[in-house]
Amino acid sequence: MSAYAVGIDLGGTNLKAALVSEDEGVVQSIQHPTEAAEGPDQVVSRMIEAARSLMEDAPGDVGGIGIGSPGAINWERTTVSQPPNFPGWERVNLREALSEVAGDRPVIVENDANVAALGSAFYGAGRPHDSFVMATLGTGVGGAIIYQNRMFRGSTGAAGEIGHMTIDYEGPIANSGVAGAIEAYAGQNFLTRHARYRLINHPDSRVYDLAGENLADLTPKLLFEAAEDGDHAAQEIFAWVGHKLGCALGSAVNLLDIRVIVVGGGISAAGDYILEPARESFQRYVATALRDGLCIEQEDRGNEVGLLGAAQMIFSGEDAHVGD
Amino acid sequence: MSAYAVGIDLGGTNLKAALVSEDEGVVQSIQHPTEAAEGPDQVVSRMIEAARSLMEDAPGDVGGIGIGSPGAINWERTTVSQPPNFPGWERVNLREALSEVAGDRPVIVENDANVAALGSAFYGAGRPHDSFVMATLGTGVGGAIIYQNRMFRGSTGAAGEIGHMTIDYEGPIANSGVAGAIEAYAGQNFLTRHARYRLINHPDSRVYDLAGENLADLTPKLLFEAAEDGDHAAQEIFAWVGHKLGCALGSAVNLLDIRVIVVGGGISAAGDYILEPARESFQRYVATALRDGLCIEQEDRGNEVGLLGAAQMIFSGEDAHVGD
Repeated sequence: MSAYAVGIDLGGTNLKAALVSEDEGVVQSIQHPTEAAEGPDQVVSRMIEAARSLMEDAPGDVGGIGIGSPGAINWERTTVSQPPNFPGWERVNLREALSEVAGDRPVIVENDANVAALGSAFYGAGRPHDSFVMATLGTGVGGAIIYQNRMFRGSTGAAGEIGHMTIDYEGPIANSGVAGAIEAYAGQNFLTRHARYRLINHPDSRVYDLAGENLADLTPKLLFEAAEDGDHAAQEIFAWVGHKLGCALGSAVNLLDIRVIVVGGGISAAGDYILEPARESFQRYVATALRDGLCIEQEDRGNEVGLLGAAQMIFSGEDAHVGD
Repeated sequence: MSAYAVGIDLGGTNLKAALVSEDEGVVQSIQHPTEAAEGPDQVVSRMIEAARSLMEDAPGDVGGIGIGSPGAINWERTTVSQPPNFPGWERVNLREALSEVAGDRPVIVENDANVAALGSAFYGAGRPHDSFVMATLGTGVGGAIIYQNRMFRGSTGAAGEIGHMTIDYEGPIANSGVAGAIEAYAGQNFLTRHARYRLINHPDSRVYDLAGENLADLTPKLLFEAAEDGDHAAQEIFAWVGHKLGCALGSAVNLLDIRVIVVGGGISAAGDYILEPARESFQRYVATALRDGLCIEQEDRGNEVGLLGAAQMIFSGEDAHVGD
């Protein structure tokens, strides 16, 4: 077991990397635009560069490189397949691709939501809980299941995909091809599209001041600023998405009988504007017999859980055990 | 480990009990109306009577009594809480209640869908699969999760409740209190109510011949007979419910990454009238990236899996391991 590890969070927008100390958490971090459109070779070079720079600066031994990535990860945790919004990435073996910088140190790749759940379990809101479901709100809606202090990975490593669960079989079609999937409400592009439609009826909304008359620059962050300014339209949009999120999370509880939910990801920064309405509908979409002990918590370590969880895979080694 | 066990299937309509041989399956069985309305004492007496009679007739040692029951079962597998359609059953400790017949033999109580999944895993359609989801279609819609040859029980023993998963957040309210829960479509009373509405537009349907002019005697069994007679209206009703079932099962696959579904319970006798449409929608409600290897199978041991699974809990002992 080493004192340090490199954690990489490969996002659709930004590539983040950090040197993580097992005792002190993130000690140094780097962020670049991912520029996924340039293709896998470019992105991999940027990952190698970041890892090399962090390893050179490390004050002690670096045990390996952990990577959180969108897309499907194989059971062996080496290879990413078809990450959404990464053109040309059919299948990339990141363990091999990063071997030139890792040497004989382990490189472990895991689904980004699973990595966030690990980070939360060790460093974040998940710490007190043996079992919880992580939901990540960002470009997409991801999820992961921690059960009895272990990652529940399903048959192929893809378990936890809350974002694809339908809440309306005749609802809008998500990128996953599923009608009424929660991602088709809460995913960033769907959310801003919905907001644009909705704001037509609120021409006085503060959002227009922030995002321009055609709302061309609309982002969840601007909506949040407007909500913080007391803008009712923005608050209602978050309430709408929170209500939908609660339905999906309720469905998950009925199936898993895991009653603690931790919500992370960029859009979760909207906090109780989303989570309070989510808590309300959540209760109603869980069977009455299963309503004891339900809770939805906001991840308190923010996006850092992705870097911490990625490094934690190295600290934990091949054993995915989570608890103390 | 003993050669025989008593398996009891405590149903809302019928109380079934069997002497099960570990090698030969069911060797003798008894069925009585449950008459749940008479209250727990009466029903428990009937269970004791059935168990005693089967144990007296057993040609060898009986290792214990396994019971599949509706309602919530505690983690220790002794006690049933609030089984739906069992008036006056707040909380009944069946291990204690049956101790006069069991003596110092174990009595293990488990949720009926979990028991069916165990029966399927050892004796039925689930045998070839390390991991599968059991869905039981009957008065209610139940479910259970077998993952890597073990029962996935969740935090309190209630995992697998597919019947409560919503497929339409503005849909009809199920008994569980959840809007659009699949049980509000596929549960027996909901299904027959839907059939009554639907048949108004099909006055020539064969179902009227079978179930009387006001459809007073309508049951899924009669619908099945009509479908077998070539009645399109009856076939369409099953297709409608199959489509809905597929949506819920798809949602479950997205969350669990367990891609094999076994469908049992009384209404599953309608077979491909339900399962073919279910297979079609099932695919569409699983994210494109997760569609390899999906399958929905009909439980081939019918209702017997409930008795076999109940006895299997005794054969397996406290270790819930399922595999070979």
